[in-house]
Amino acid sequence: MKIKPIEWKEGNICLLDQTRLPWEELYLDLVDVEGICEAIKFLRIRGAPAIGVAAAFGLAMGAQSIEGQSRSEFMENLGSISRTIAATRPTAVNLFWALDRMWRVAENQEDVPGIKAALIDEAGAIERETAEDDRKMSENGAVLIQDGFTILTHCNAGALATAGFGTALGVIGAAHEQGKRIEVFADETRPLLQGARLTAWELMRAGIPVTLITDNMAGHFMKAGRIDCVVVGADRIAANGDVANKIGTYSVAVLAHEHGIPFYVAAPMSTVDFKTLTGDDIPIEERDPAEVTCPYGLQIAPEGVRVANPAFDVTPHEYVSAIITEEGIARNPYTDSLQSMRKGDANA
Amino acid sequence: MKIKPIEWKEGNICLLDQTRLPWEELYLDLVDVEGICEAIKFLRIRGAPAIGVAAAFGLAMGAQSIEGQSRSEFMENLGSISRTIAATRPTAVNLFWALDRMWRVAENQEDVPGIKAALIDEAGAIERETAEDDRKMSENGAVLIQDGFTILTHCNAGALATAGFGTALGVIGAAHEQGKRIEVFADETRPLLQGARLTAWELMRAGIPVTLITDNMAGHFMKAGRIDCVVVGADRIAANGDVANKIGTYSVAVLAHEHGIPFYVAAPMSTVDFKTLTGDDIPIEERDPAEVTCPYGLQIAPEGVRVANPAFDVTPHEYVSAIITEEGIARNPYTDSLQSMRKGDANA
Repeated sequence: MKIKPIEWKEGNICLLDQTRLPWEELYLDLVDVEGICEAIKFLRIRGAPAIGVAAAFGLAMGAQSIEGQSRSEFMENLGSISRTIAATRPTAVNLFWALDRMWRVAENQEDVPGIKAALIDEAGAIERETAEDDRKMSENGAVLIQDGFTILTHCNAGALATAGFGTALGVIGAAHEQGKRIEVFADETRPLLQGARLTAWELMRAGIPVTLITDNMAGHFMKAGRIDCVVVGADRIAANGDVANKIGTYSVAVLAHEHGIPFYVAAPMSTVDFKTLTGDDIPIEERDPAEVTCPYGLQIAPEGVRVANPAFDVTPHEYVSAIITEEGIARNPYTDSLQSMRKGDANA
Repeated sequence: MKIKPIEWKEGNICLLDQTRLPWEELYLDLVDVEGICEAIKFLRIRGAPAIGVAAAFGLAMGAQSIEGQSRSEFMENLGSISRTIAATRPTAVNLFWALDRMWRVAENQEDVPGIKAALIDEAGAIERETAEDDRKMSENGAVLIQDGFTILTHCNAGALATAGFGTALGVIGAAHEQGKRIEVFADETRPLLQGARLTAWELMRAGIPVTLITDNMAGHFMKAGRIDCVVVGADRIAANGDVANKIGTYSVAVLAHEHGIPFYVAAPMSTVDFKTLTGDDIPIEERDPAEVTCPYGLQIAPEGVRVANPAFDVTPHEYVSAIITEEGIARNPYTDSLQSMRKGDANA
């Protein structure tokens, strides 16, 4: 029952189309860079760590199709492919992190055949390490989840979002594996309903009790004493601990703060962007208004209404009780605690 | 272009089916109590003041069909009809307020023909006074709206919700009529999307600039400094000023408080329930899970997922900057300020 949102298959990329969940498990066979870019842009694959894996596989796949040229011409073409992939989505830093890491590997190879082989290896390493980091992060975070807890989560930060064990749902899954009796409240997460479509689906498959709510119910259930902690993922974490994540995360954080409920962020160190000093510097993607007015083909608003559709918001670090990573649990002041966990391939 | 959500038409009730907006303006001709009860229960008409008007018209219509009996038998039948209407929805107090007021009128009449005629008159008076109160409330509230303001509203508290000029949207409309350059951010208001379907529709008809957002975006735009005040309606206000309103209102109130943004509630005195001392005593309607998982026929969650669907929440009075009524603007302490505005037909 392990979920495989993306897989390298003999030079092609096999991808579970997440826009079709929970209605059908449709696997796409992507054969070119255009296909992987389209899949990232339209959220067939989404979630910061999974986007990183997809970008790495995409670049490895693209590299194979660059034909018989000099090393310098090859690198030029590779750079162009990398920029195309980088242009798909602006907020999740794992996209750029994975492409940077792939680029450094290419640069260290002597010749074109060496680069092509090394890129496939490196993409595989990124996928493997992402999954390993998920596991460590989940074990680290499970310590914060007590027996009997009801955990609120927002959007989807599960296996679907990481191509591993999940970040927020990884922490929840690890606590469940340890025998803790827990349950989850899942925000449906408008506009694209990743909570309703993906988180509910993953948790039901895992046998973890889940209650689906609309985003605007979270405060009501916090006030009623039904929520013990919040765990969410992240798309980019600034050096000071400010967290960009799916739109609505900030509201949940403020509500948690008001009710004295711990608000945890689970993310790999590859999501920490040390060169982005604060959340103010994180670019926020504005998406198609039709995602708001016409979700999955259902027109719910008058024709021509003006719409705002920021895909992410930024939660200032003061609202974040802890950031759970594969290197341990960071607490405020995050500038110091994140720095102390910094790895060799950090975004910098 | 005046919106008439409900109208008395020679003994029948003509009702705009709000579940069909914005797709079509479908008017239903309701001929019996069963029809009006179904319409209230399934939100073909909704909004506390409009539910009050619908209940009054429903009882007047039902009274006409009670056939040749003694006064005491008639009153027994009338009581039964009243209880049927009262059982449609539990939270909006205007329903019970209107039925109580109608009952007192019936009790004061000598004979059956007199009662039948008086009930039609009284339902008309309730409709007329509701509209007049909307106007006074709107003028009172418009003072709080400054030129250049962007106002956030949640759910629909317009003409559709009151059968008059609207409460929250009445205040906004009055400010607009006064020539103030204002705009509105409208929460879409899951699960039934009254903001997307009804508020956007009403404001576009009125020529007031409106931007539609998902409920989880409100905090983001408050943090960005885009919102100057919040105005919402109410389904029931306790004697101490605690406000029951559409689910999600409480979250908006907490967010407004955190950002130092005034949070105003606009409602007629018929929405104040003096016999309900605090918000803890207000019954909260739990509605069909399918409203969350399958809005308007679109299945958005896995089959069989557990769902919570409270239709309302309670905002404690500490978060309410002012309550705007036809009698003036009440401020904390509300127990005193609301009491001083109390009218003869108050819920008590």
